[in-house]
Amino acid sequence: MQLNEMSASEIVAAIAGGRVSCVEVAQACLARIAEREDAVHAWAFVDPARVLDEARRRDSESARGPLHGLPIGIKDIIDTADMPTAMGSPIYAGHQPRADAACVAIVREAGAVILGKTVTAQFASMSPGPTVNPHNPAHTPGGSSSGSAAAVADQMVPAAFGTQTGGSVLRPSSYCGVVGYRPTFGTFNMAGIKPAAQSFDALGLHARTVDDIHLLARVLTGAAPAALEVPTAAPVVGICRTPLWEHAQPETVGALDDAAARLEAAGCRLVRIDLPDEYATLDAARVAATAYERSRAMAWEWAHRRDQIGTLLQEEILRGRAIRPDDYEAALTRLEACRAAIGVHIRGFDVVLAPAADGAAPQGIASTGNARFQGFWTALYLPAITLPTSRASNGLPVGIQLVGDYRQDEKLLAVAKWVFERLNPVGRPSDN
Amino acid sequence: MQLNEMSASEIVAAIAGGRVSCVEVAQACLARIAEREDAVHAWAFVDPARVLDEARRRDSESARGPLHGLPIGIKDIIDTADMPTAMGSPIYAGHQPRADAACVAIVREAGAVILGKTVTAQFASMSPGPTVNPHNPAHTPGGSSSGSAAAVADQMVPAAFGTQTGGSVLRPSSYCGVVGYRPTFGTFNMAGIKPAAQSFDALGLHARTVDDIHLLARVLTGAAPAALEVPTAAPVVGICRTPLWEHAQPETVGALDDAAARLEAAGCRLVRIDLPDEYATLDAARVAATAYERSRAMAWEWAHRRDQIGTLLQEEILRGRAIRPDDYEAALTRLEACRAAIGVHIRGFDVVLAPAADGAAPQGIASTGNARFQGFWTALYLPAITLPTSRASNGLPVGIQLVGDYRQDEKLLAVAKWVFERLNPVGRPSDN
Repeated sequence: MQLNEMSASEIVAAIAGGRVSCVEVAQACLARIAEREDAVHAWAFVDPARVLDEARRRDSESARGPLHGLPIGIKDIIDTADMPTAMGSPIYAGHQPRADAACVAIVREAGAVILGKTVTAQFASMSPGPTVNPHNPAHTPGGSSSGSAAAVADQMVPAAFGTQTGGSVLRPSSYCGVVGYRPTFGTFNMAGIKPAAQSFDALGLHARTVDDIHLLARVLTGAAPAALEVPTAAPVVGICRTPLWEHAQPETVGALDDAAARLEAAGCRLVRIDLPDEYATLDAARVAATAYERSRAMAWEWAHRRDQIGTLLQEEILRGRAIRPDDYEAALTRLEACRAAIGVHIRGFDVVLAPAADGAAPQGIASTGNARFQGFWTALYLPAITLPTSRASNGLPVGIQLVGDYRQDEKLLAVAKWVFERLNPVGRPSDN
Repeated sequence: MQLNEMSASEIVAAIAGGRVSCVEVAQACLARIAEREDAVHAWAFVDPARVLDEARRRDSESARGPLHGLPIGIKDIIDTADMPTAMGSPIYAGHQPRADAACVAIVREAGAVILGKTVTAQFASMSPGPTVNPHNPAHTPGGSSSGSAAAVADQMVPAAFGTQTGGSVLRPSSYCGVVGYRPTFGTFNMAGIKPAAQSFDALGLHARTVDDIHLLARVLTGAAPAALEVPTAAPVVGICRTPLWEHAQPETVGALDDAAARLEAAGCRLVRIDLPDEYATLDAARVAATAYERSRAMAWEWAHRRDQIGTLLQEEILRGRAIRPDDYEAALTRLEACRAAIGVHIRGFDVVLAPAADGAAPQGIASTGNARFQGFWTALYLPAITLPTSRASNGLPVGIQLVGDYRQDEKLLAVAKWVFERLNPVGRPSDN
């Protein structure tokens, strides 16, 4: 196995054990980027000399922390003090923040090497960037964390930061065949990340294993490093198709059925969860509240650089500006009621199994797909993870989504690891 | 009355009616600053030539919106595209953001003239800036929105933006004798405001009348301009001393008793609210969660500029870094339980009357005072306003705090106006 194909956990163990150097790991990732970037367009900024300098400094010092020497990709709406942060927009071309975002500073303090900035849809919206799906360049990688998901899928970097307001981490992860995680709302610090819609924004993670997600999540919250303890008994799984099920395409129906059948064979008890009617209006409330908040967050760009904003984002801002504050508050109130009530429907289950996306990655890169199946759980503030467990007939990856109870992120990750060990992972995307 | 002594509502009406020009209003504010700034130190940045340029542009165009020509002060942790934003810290000296914060862009779109940046405690923390109390320079103006409260109190500007994480809007407003308002959590957009503690941060407002607060709040949320309709009947008032009552100093006890007596004489029914024991632990949970979040938000500054961080803020960061994620989550869970339960205690009342601060402004400027009485309601996410209704024996202003129900901000402001009309306002601070 090449160094760039190793998981984050394997890499930090190999560096800590003196079996490889930080520079060798960085070189392997940079070599993969040099080989594949012209095809994938996952990166907004990579400066190999600077990366190797930072890796050399890590090699010359004692271990900083549990991420010592680990290369990480950073979505380009997240501030970096030593690399430009362009938000996927010509408005911020070459923009150099004064400081690292909190999440970047925290992983650097733990020894991580920032490999570069990954392509984001404009301001983490639906207006896409140039990235393609590494499994098939005729298809979208999803978005808005397009470059992070594609870079991790294409073995350019073992892990990357994304952000999710609707489905911007889980959807590209599902489309690209990697593990994507968005924690309980509020878990990771958001300082230095350009806001999209403040009631929904969260930092999330892309990696190729659940252990890697766990490793990074513990560093970000300040928890001491610890192995992920998988359950000793088969988990009880609630299957929730959600009120959006009519949008599930055959490959998503297939991925859910396939996962259910294999989990049952592995000893899981599966119980169908039917949510009451009030949840049918959740998606519309989420979309309205998001548009309202985004139109406010983009007030300066709208007033001064409107012609440089992508068409899809302009349309969302216009929709948001047309929403009256009373209707916005009504949407928030509806979402709060759903959040307050969801617990009774999901308690008693170790995890909820749900669709990850409408289907596999759609053709073309003009759209990054629809956020509804990820946004449903985002709006409920529940932790969620997607696992690449299936394939569409055209060979593209299809994920499942596992959802945990509020603030039970550690348990969600433990169950997800148990599940992932039993449902074959997709493997290396570029092998296809 | 001088132009700089007029309220925001009076100013925009006078400009709209053609009775004064935007330049004349700006000149009056700038003249007051020139006269008093050496004594008060309310401003981090004012460029008179640039302000007059902007006012001249407003005079030369048709009315942009309901704030046309209104001078506003902006707390210096809020980004401005054309003025430096130094966060009250040498670390960000001369720092020039790329864009206006959302709130700044929104009020500019409505016609406001940004007068300058007001002094903030370092990163909106407890580490104070140079501002003194305009009523008595031997006393703190409170913080962290020190300059905003002092500038409004000293008639330098009719209104200013502050932010509140614990008590950073209401405490300095109470100490300086102005009206201070923090809306229901999440109401105003936070894009472009340096985060302090993300579960608590809110944009707030300082002004000299409740109508002015209402005017600005409606612009910020995108509501159409409307007059504030005061209740036709005397409101039913719940008096809540809170479990922190032992910290109330004689002038706060006096301010509350005095307000209660005068409200009763004005026809209000007053009912004492005794919160159950669980609320006694709220303040400790708030302080712990705030310290944890602030220590993350300041990760870059801590790693790279530690020696330039003020002592009080360093101490808070150290406390925050020592809090384990499990204890942080337990604190958040406790706060969420209090939030979920508070409604039953305050419903049935038109407003809750509570202490605004421990007492009047303490002597010296090494501390900005304690945030507990403001932070209590901040942590409950309820809208709150302070009104300058009383005086300590040393002549310093003492406020009361009025608290509304969740998302009932419009009602809170209406009742506050009714109350303020019946309890004599302090008047012009510099007259004392």
